[in-house]
Amino acid sequence: MRVQVIARTEFLPPADVPWETDADGGQALAEFAGRACYQSWNKPNPATATNAGYLRHILDVGHLSVLEHGTVTLYITGVSRSLTHELVRHRHFSYSQLSQRYVPERDAEMVEPEVVAADPELHALFQEAAAASLEAYSKLLEGLEKHFAEVAAPTSRRKQARQAARSVLPNATETRIVVTGNYRAWRHFIAMRASESADVEIRGLAILALRALQDVAPNVFADFRVSTLDDGTEVASSPLVSEG
Amino acid sequence: MRVQVIARTEFLPPADVPWETDADGGQALAEFAGRACYQSWNKPNPATATNAGYLRHILDVGHLSVLEHGTVTLYITGVSRSLTHELVRHRHFSYSQLSQRYVPERDAEMVEPEVVAADPELHALFQEAAAASLEAYSKLLEGLEKHFAEVAAPTSRRKQARQAARSVLPNATETRIVVTGNYRAWRHFIAMRASESADVEIRGLAILALRALQDVAPNVFADFRVSTLDDGTEVASSPLVSEG
Amino acid sequence: MRVQVIARTEFLPPADVPWETDADGGQALAEFAGRACYQSWNKPNPATATNAGYLRHILDVGHLSVLEHGTVTLYITGVSRSLTHELVRHRHFSYSQLSQRYVPERDAEMVEPEVVAADPELHALFQEAAAASLEAYSKLLEGLEKHFAEVAAPTSRRKQARQAARSVLPNATETRIVVTGNYRAWRHFIAMRASESADVEIRGLAILALRALQDVAPNVFADFRVSTLDDGTEVASSPLVSEG
Amino acid sequence: MRVQVIARTEFLPPADVPWETDADGGQALAEFAGRACYQSWNKPNPATATNAGYLRHILDVGHLSVLEHGTVTLYITGVSRSLTHELVRHRHFSYSQLSQRYVPERDAEMVEPEVVAADPELHALFQEAAAASLEAYSKLLEGLEKHFAEVAAPTSRRKQARQAARSVLPNATETRIVVTGNYRAWRHFIAMRASESADVEIRGLAILALRALQDVAPNVFADFRVSTLDDGTEVASSPLVSEG
Repeated sequence: MRVQVIARTEFLPPADVPWETDADGGQALAEFAGRACYQSWNKPNPATATNAGYLRHILDVGHLSVLEHGTVTLYITGVSRSLTHELVRHRHFSYSQLSQRYVPERDAEMVEPEVVAADPELHALFQEAAAASLEAYSKLLEGLEKHFAEVAAPTSRRKQARQAARSVLPNATETRIVVTGNYRAWRHFIAMRASESADVEIRGLAILALRALQDVAPNVFADFRVSTLDDGTEVASSPLVSEG
Repeated sequence: MRVQVIARTEFLPPADVPWETDADGGQALAEFAGRACYQSWNKPNPATATNAGYLRHILDVGHLSVLEHGTVTLYITGVSRSLTHELVRHRHFSYSQLSQRYVPERDAEMVEPEVVAADPELHALFQEAAAASLEAYSKLLEGLEKHFAEVAAPTSRRKQARQAARSVLPNATETRIVVTGNYRAWRHFIAMRASESADVEIRGLAILALRALQDVAPNVFADFRVSTLDDGTEVASSPLVSEG
Repeated sequence: MRVQVIARTEFLPPADVPWETDADGGQALAEFAGRACYQSWNKPNPATATNAGYLRHILDVGHLSVLEHGTVTLYITGVSRSLTHELVRHRHFSYSQLSQRYVPERDAEMVEPEVVAADPELHALFQEAAAASLEAYSKLLEGLEKHFAEVAAPTSRRKQARQAARSVLPNATETRIVVTGNYRAWRHFIAMRASESADVEIRGLAILALRALQDVAPNVFADFRVSTLDDGTEVASSPLVSEG
Repeated sequence: MRVQVIARTEFLPPADVPWETDADGGQALAEFAGRACYQSWNKPNPATATNAGYLRHILDVGHLSVLEHGTVTLYITGVSRSLTHELVRHRHFSYSQLSQRYVPERDAEMVEPEVVAADPELHALFQEAAAASLEAYSKLLEGLEKHFAEVAAPTSRRKQARQAARSVLPNATETRIVVTGNYRAWRHFIAMRASESADVEIRGLAILALRALQDVAPNVFADFRVSTLDDGTEVASSPLVSEG
């Protein structure tokens, strides 16, 4: 699994507003948006005179809508279709995902659960099942391409063959997805999916996403802490958010 | 595949509004909502004096927000996880779906693409692949339950085993899902998914959904027409909507 | 201010599911949706064998998506445009609101803040200001209708006059609005707007809405309690929700 | 009315993807997202080998979800509360707006409709009404601050006074708002609000927003054309979008 930040917010401060801050990008934008609500461009209170202090206050009072202006886009590869089937339920994100209707999967990678990979017997079972599925896929695809040979448009022909053949591909099939979300949506995702009750794979994604987001916008995600469970996997949580 | 209407809107007309109409449920509610915007409780124009005429006018002028008040819930069974992975991208619906993390799939049904089922050779390939996947799932599940035997809580133990074992289940695995949407969201779904460019399976769902919705709220879906393509599959479209 | 329930969810249990419950409407639908996720139609646990117990469990574990299937529509009258400007920020509701572009407001009611109405001096100030605004509106409208007299289409002519004349109408101008939301969205609205930090008028709406919702779906809103502040106004809260 | 671009998307191309394009920012991101769906990093077709050509194709085929990754934030000042009451109905935007509960409006500017300002008699009517409203507001605020003098917390005291006093402020009162939206949401906003049927003021905003967006992301908004109506106001439309 790999998570790469491929886009973030660039802030262009308006020239006519008598204010500046000690951060840039989406963090500065969040502060600007918060101050615009009150037209409070002065900083009489030292506790909120820095961007870090201001955003901490925003989180404390729950004025979360100002965290909707900054966005981060992640390019996520090496994850399974089980994971993305759960991921795309999050309605506040935008998605562009590798299509099994358009892309042939003859050489698809498989994302093996770690607990399976760590046990030689289970690993062998998984490998065998994955290979059998891919072989069945390739044969089905070949047969379907013959079946649809009379379809004039090649794109349509291939699409019809692939969308039927994919029926035998397993949940473990690797997929890739571009995900854009604003800070508030990412915070919600992490609160929900970095918790112990989440599936191990999507929990791993939530932890990687959190680390990437803490690099991009440390003041917005500073309250989340990662810890390690007895089984060696990681979770993250914040005193400022609840899962609900 | 089966589509059952399991909930719909019941309208309770307010006693103090000097208006009545010749429909009930969500259709009456849509008319009420439209008239509330203009407080136009009289019906001077015969063209809009019936509920059918009024809603036709709403569609003609594109005042689609009044179609958001009425909702319909479908219980959809006998569909594949390929289909639901696409379905749940529709952000204006609400979903409750059978969970592969909680429900064991040893005896899962498989949803075979029609084009595969119709060809004896492809059908045999599919059946064999499906059986092999289910067998691998059962063995993996057994091995994982042993692996997690030391986990104290039985629910957690089973969940951890199932969420890893599901990795070998194919896209064709049958799933069931409760879907609630308002009329406007359903119209958008049908416009997008009953079109020729959609996957055959989800297109079949869109056609079944359209027929169910035309039963519940004929005046809201009257403009959609079903037709049959050369390959025998159906599509639906309306002069009043575009796919975009 | 008046809040009327004008629509709610009607549940039609599917004949082939071996389950029944001791509630109907959206409450039964929520239970059905929850059980569909686990295909758990039996009721081995007495604590969740009633609809009330089942939904209490749903709230306890935060499985809130099953509360999205049931909806309630309120017709809200006698509220100010200040209130609706805040209300329509809630993105999970659907709205149909009286339009000041289409409906003339010469005889509009004014929604006076209670604290103003209770003080004879402030009340007199308010009444005078409201009357002056309405008079200015009427004169502006008259002048604008003359200005637009050459516009051929009467609907367009009146709309152009009204949309300019409304500029002098005050926030206090009465408006009416149809609001549809699912149970989850209504719970969020009440958590946000029935709290002490909310504006007094919208807080009053949240309390009235809560009481109406507790009538329609008591098991879904049972955890909210209303209490009275020192100043005599009411608030509501639940141990199961936070404002964030 | 003034519209300033205060944030936009910065694209950080992943090092390991064998592709580059002739644009940057959100335009490059949209192309990346589109190509990720098909893993089509080559450019065999000259028509889609440039960013402009690729995005034109995206618009032509209606693959609009790839336009959700790039965002633009506008800081909009000098608009009326009538306008923002309509604006905030757009659910796909994020907003931070000057609060009349927190900011005193004694010296508020008024946004006079152009058709009123152009007619000396109507202009005088408007000016007089606006001045009377502001005077009533100031007096009410003074009286309310006395009324709430016993409230201990100064922020709460002032908030309670302001939220009641604002009841007499007119729709024309100037407000300021930070609005963030993705390209798809902005396209929808312009399609809806730059049309002849929209209110003159919000139509003016839609035109200014379009021009700002065409500067930031010309390839995404290239299909919209501005034209002038007989009454001198502007509209915009595209052959690729419908209002619905």
